[in-house]
Amino acid sequence: MSALSPHPDRLLPSDPATRDVARRLYDEVADAPILSPHGHVEARLLLDDEPFPDPAALFVTPDHYVTRLLHAHGVPLDRLGVGVPQEDRDGRAIWRLLCAHWDAFLGTPVRFWLESALAGVFGIAEQPGEESADRIYDELQARLAEPAFRPRALFDRFGIEVLATTDDPADDLAAHLALREDPTFTGRVIPTFRADRYLTPGTAAWAPALAALAEASGIDTGSYAGLLDALRSRRAFFRAAGGTATDTGVLWPDTTPLSNTEAERIHLGALAGEVTPAEASAYRSNLLYRLAELSVDDGLVMQLHAGVHRNTHRPTFDRFGPDTGHDLPAVGGYTLPLAPLLQDFGTAEGFHLVLFTVDETLFSREIAPLAGFYPSVYAGAPWWFLDSPAAIERYRAAVTDSAGFGKTSGFIDDTRAFCSIPARHDMSRRADAAFLASLVTTHQLTEEDALGAARRLVDEQPRRVFKL
Amino acid sequence: MSALSPHPDRLLPSDPATRDVARRLYDEVADAPILSPHGHVEARLLLDDEPFPDPAALFVTPDHYVTRLLHAHGVPLDRLGVGVPQEDRDGRAIWRLLCAHWDAFLGTPVRFWLESALAGVFGIAEQPGEESADRIYDELQARLAEPAFRPRALFDRFGIEVLATTDDPADDLAAHLALREDPTFTGRVIPTFRADRYLTPGTAAWAPALAALAEASGIDTGSYAGLLDALRSRRAFFRAAGGTATDTGVLWPDTTPLSNTEAERIHLGALAGEVTPAEASAYRSNLLYRLAELSVDDGLVMQLHAGVHRNTHRPTFDRFGPDTGHDLPAVGGYTLPLAPLLQDFGTAEGFHLVLFTVDETLFSREIAPLAGFYPSVYAGAPWWFLDSPAAIERYRAAVTDSAGFGKTSGFIDDTRAFCSIPARHDMSRRADAAFLASLVTTHQLTEEDALGAARRLVDEQPRRVFKL
Amino acid sequence: MSALSPHPDRLLPSDPATRDVARRLYDEVADAPILSPHGHVEARLLLDDEPFPDPAALFVTPDHYVTRLLHAHGVPLDRLGVGVPQEDRDGRAIWRLLCAHWDAFLGTPVRFWLESALAGVFGIAEQPGEESADRIYDELQARLAEPAFRPRALFDRFGIEVLATTDDPADDLAAHLALREDPTFTGRVIPTFRADRYLTPGTAAWAPALAALAEASGIDTGSYAGLLDALRSRRAFFRAAGGTATDTGVLWPDTTPLSNTEAERIHLGALAGEVTPAEASAYRSNLLYRLAELSVDDGLVMQLHAGVHRNTHRPTFDRFGPDTGHDLPAVGGYTLPLAPLLQDFGTAEGFHLVLFTVDETLFSREIAPLAGFYPSVYAGAPWWFLDSPAAIERYRAAVTDSAGFGKTSGFIDDTRAFCSIPARHDMSRRADAAFLASLVTTHQLTEEDALGAARRLVDEQPRRVFKL
Repeated sequence: MSALSPHPDRLLPSDPATRDVARRLYDEVADAPILSPHGHVEARLLLDDEPFPDPAALFVTPDHYVTRLLHAHGVPLDRLGVGVPQEDRDGRAIWRLLCAHWDAFLGTPVRFWLESALAGVFGIAEQPGEESADRIYDELQARLAEPAFRPRALFDRFGIEVLATTDDPADDLAAHLALREDPTFTGRVIPTFRADRYLTPGTAAWAPALAALAEASGIDTGSYAGLLDALRSRRAFFRAAGGTATDTGVLWPDTTPLSNTEAERIHLGALAGEVTPAEASAYRSNLLYRLAELSVDDGLVMQLHAGVHRNTHRPTFDRFGPDTGHDLPAVGGYTLPLAPLLQDFGTAEGFHLVLFTVDETLFSREIAPLAGFYPSVYAGAPWWFLDSPAAIERYRAAVTDSAGFGKTSGFIDDTRAFCSIPARHDMSRRADAAFLASLVTTHQLTEEDALGAARRLVDEQPRRVFKL
Repeated sequence: MSALSPHPDRLLPSDPATRDVARRLYDEVADAPILSPHGHVEARLLLDDEPFPDPAALFVTPDHYVTRLLHAHGVPLDRLGVGVPQEDRDGRAIWRLLCAHWDAFLGTPVRFWLESALAGVFGIAEQPGEESADRIYDELQARLAEPAFRPRALFDRFGIEVLATTDDPADDLAAHLALREDPTFTGRVIPTFRADRYLTPGTAAWAPALAALAEASGIDTGSYAGLLDALRSRRAFFRAAGGTATDTGVLWPDTTPLSNTEAERIHLGALAGEVTPAEASAYRSNLLYRLAELSVDDGLVMQLHAGVHRNTHRPTFDRFGPDTGHDLPAVGGYTLPLAPLLQDFGTAEGFHLVLFTVDETLFSREIAPLAGFYPSVYAGAPWWFLDSPAAIERYRAAVTDSAGFGKTSGFIDDTRAFCSIPARHDMSRRADAAFLASLVTTHQLTEEDALGAARRLVDEQPRRVFKL
Repeated sequence: MSALSPHPDRLLPSDPATRDVARRLYDEVADAPILSPHGHVEARLLLDDEPFPDPAALFVTPDHYVTRLLHAHGVPLDRLGVGVPQEDRDGRAIWRLLCAHWDAFLGTPVRFWLESALAGVFGIAEQPGEESADRIYDELQARLAEPAFRPRALFDRFGIEVLATTDDPADDLAAHLALREDPTFTGRVIPTFRADRYLTPGTAAWAPALAALAEASGIDTGSYAGLLDALRSRRAFFRAAGGTATDTGVLWPDTTPLSNTEAERIHLGALAGEVTPAEASAYRSNLLYRLAELSVDDGLVMQLHAGVHRNTHRPTFDRFGPDTGHDLPAVGGYTLPLAPLLQDFGTAEGFHLVLFTVDETLFSREIAPLAGFYPSVYAGAPWWFLDSPAAIERYRAAVTDSAGFGKTSGFIDDTRAFCSIPARHDMSRRADAAFLASLVTTHQLTEEDALGAARRLVDEQPRRVFKL
């Protein structure tokens, strides 16, 4: 049996002097409350507080970080339970596939997260592998049946102070509202307003989305003016439910505004089934601009997650749907496409715009220079494919020069995997401690300054940036 | 009171063995004369040799590296004295703003420069902060009144051997000429020929620029042929005044030449107010090509600083003018746009072309491969947003593979902040010593070879590349 | 005399604890057999087994890595023997030029390769330099006359198990076939199918290439269908001669397929001298798609080396021909241009597609995410301008996050310089050991896991990826 015992100093620099500093910095923030201002765990999970069905449903099937690399090693997605109803899945068989391919994850952040969760949360003491797969499965299964491993108990144990979900504007936020009124749950679970569906005239999903929004808001969305009113109304509803931020995902974040007349014309045309790709694109750019305008008005923080080609492998999409591992990074850009938005709102009082990218060339070329001039702009934490120790170091090294620490967003976990939340925040805290320590032992910062920065990065910074 | 005492080993690697080597390399070059072949200090500063008015005018207001990050933290530019006449500025209030936001600069090169200047040049012994702001201000103010802190005294104390300024071809170089004839000043202050204004037909500034150039040269610039003659004549004038180089800043460095007939046609059209954007662009590309041709003829080194979107925030530009922090890096490129120029002049005897970028993806993909083939091409030092210890390391690591050390330009400070000159060169020397030391302790270089390289990088290399 | 004695720990990390681990990892693989699945040494070299003519012909003239940097330092290519018949070259004069510019290579991988070969293969004990040039030349010359320094003896001494060459489909592979039937040679030298010439309708070389292919295959290539048949037939011939892979080099790897009718129309038009650039481009994209289709059918591994502007300096090309140092990296891309290919073949059973780039922005943004989802895609080793210790580290740091180690290709040397083969593989093994060791001492991997990974990277991985 090969032991699973994550080292207490993992990710800290190997140079002894730097490690000593890094350890002190890390110790200072290791147990700080978790502020999670962006993620994809559902509020209902905490409302229902049901036991997780089995280890595969917890660690494998819903986590596209895990399934994509197994797929890359030749494991078909359906054998991992993707697209298969929970009742038809063989959790143990899925788990065995993960264990059989454990080496595929060597050196990846996924392995860090899984090891941290298995050892730290579930007390597993041996490495996954073909031989140990069943034993670990049984042990996990036994734990999952215990009250201490239900979502709310884990929420408390993880030290989560704020957990933001991601929600459609038409969502009734029933789970959020119920949680707020539930005296037995004291955690803070807040919605995030994600209006992506309304930016896509010309797709089949657009008209039904407008209809749903109209029903949710009681406002006719048959016109562009109505859509804006409905969005404004739902944003107020989200704010009332505790929301502090919006999120938008687009491929290219152009923000050229349209006149109301022109936007209205396209809106009506699209509803009538008459919209050209150029019109749809202009409409989307305008709406992104309007979302910023709405944020200037109502104070909701605007997050942008741009530059991802979604669902690139048609056969996989047709069979398994979205979020199944074939979203891929695009060549990114912010300086040019955001120019109209920043021209008008870049210095607006109280406006916060957090920029995320999966194209790391933007760190030093676009995001840090923008965040280093515009009061509204913050450099979002390394995201998705870049959420790894090595990329976090590259991010800090590239962004700090022009934007310092005070114009970075603080960590976001962006995860669907509930049990990975503490491991992801822990990875970020370790990586930041390592970076800060390297500045200390090269005498670019005093240790006192580094301690202050480490604390602010997990506390003051996300609170301020995301208005928590 | 928190002490300000920059560590003697700052920026050197933390690994003890590597630091020992780095320290020896750094010691070898720490006090070498400063060759500053590209910058924005004005010759008049040294001619007049007046005391600096106050600490804010020295360290804050004119330095967009400083003001932009304060602006990013919500401080309006006018409160920093930008766009305000010196007599209406409250230097102490401005200084207090810098001190109150001292943490914003943590980990940035600006903090390194400021700390080095405050401690090393002015003997300030405590960290700026809200509590210490006034004390430091008073101490600086007292120093500035002393003769030892006038520009010429500092020029000597900084060990500046050559200081290049940046000047318009129509400039009469009066300050340069007066300095050369002043027996009490023995420093070498040389002009750099920057003809950017003449590349922009179709803008309001173009015709007046042509007129000024005609007056300065005594050559009619009403024709394209006349413009070329006038430029040629002024280049000779700059050379006679000690100039060794030109500089050009363009967004995209296309160099497609035009026939003289076509260039003449556009020139005349533009003077008549008839020029399309495409014609203006073609004219600019051609003129960039012609500037290279002129350099081949007269031997002036050609510097290219490409890839910056200038004055991107219109409201700030309208109120505060250029160079106020909202210039932003563009997606860069050299291989394709320079192809026509390199085709014809890339192997021309004695031609030197120094390429700078703020898009670091060009280091390994374009600049180093070009410098590693064309005798004329040199990889310019990391510039502007990339002038930082971390970016210098990335530059060396990316450029050395294909271009070695001998095809890099040596450091340029490119600064408007006179007192930052020694600190900037010092940062570069430390960063290069750190990089070279890492090659020594990984046995890629002998220490003897590294010592030779360190020396050449601050001496022979800039002398040769910039023909100093 | 300055000693030439490459350090046994060169390229290993300087931190003592990390170096200890790295040394153990390196020792594990230092003497592993060399699998060279991609290169440009010719089979005839081993068939003929003639002595190398002289040191310049071995180390300088044919190696564009060497000549380009000398050219960049002002040495004309003809003085290095490029474009000069062997009998007219002055080997000693060429060698003196290399030695006189030895400092130009400081810090470059070329210096590492040359030092390793000179010291390790030829036992040279002093550094090249002007003073030592002749002594070293004489010593090398003496060695080259010895039987132990003929190609086959070196092949054995280098421990080469598999050496892949690069060959045109019309090649008769006579040297390969003769080597296979030669009982005195037990090495494995295999051809690689490189059909680049057939992708370029509209160039003067295309019709003659088709004619040569028709003759080699006995299949009429006057039609597109015939071309496909001929390619299929030659692929079978290459497979029979031991080939396991194809290689294709294109500037932009678009893979949009055409209907057979349209492809046929362009083919016939091009033969008739009527083809537009757009048609030629569409034809090329289609053929790249078809090459993948053929690989799905016959199992030959598909290598793509994309993103290089070839022969950019016309005067040099006109005088010296191709491969003379002025090929330059382009802005790369894979995700979008490969979409049609991956849509149809990305998950095809047994299909292997290895992606190489000289634009390192693709590592984290495109190649690793693609290799981390598609079973067919492998992240090719850092190539050409990126084949250096620093770039290998950046590659591993960027690629491992999303693709782990198991979806990387293993090292390829891609060299024309026979004696650099062991040095290049050695550099890769050292760099990988350094990277893995850094993961061990930051507790991201156990040393046992790192040992396994190090072994797999030089053995199982290339065998599996290239089907050796």
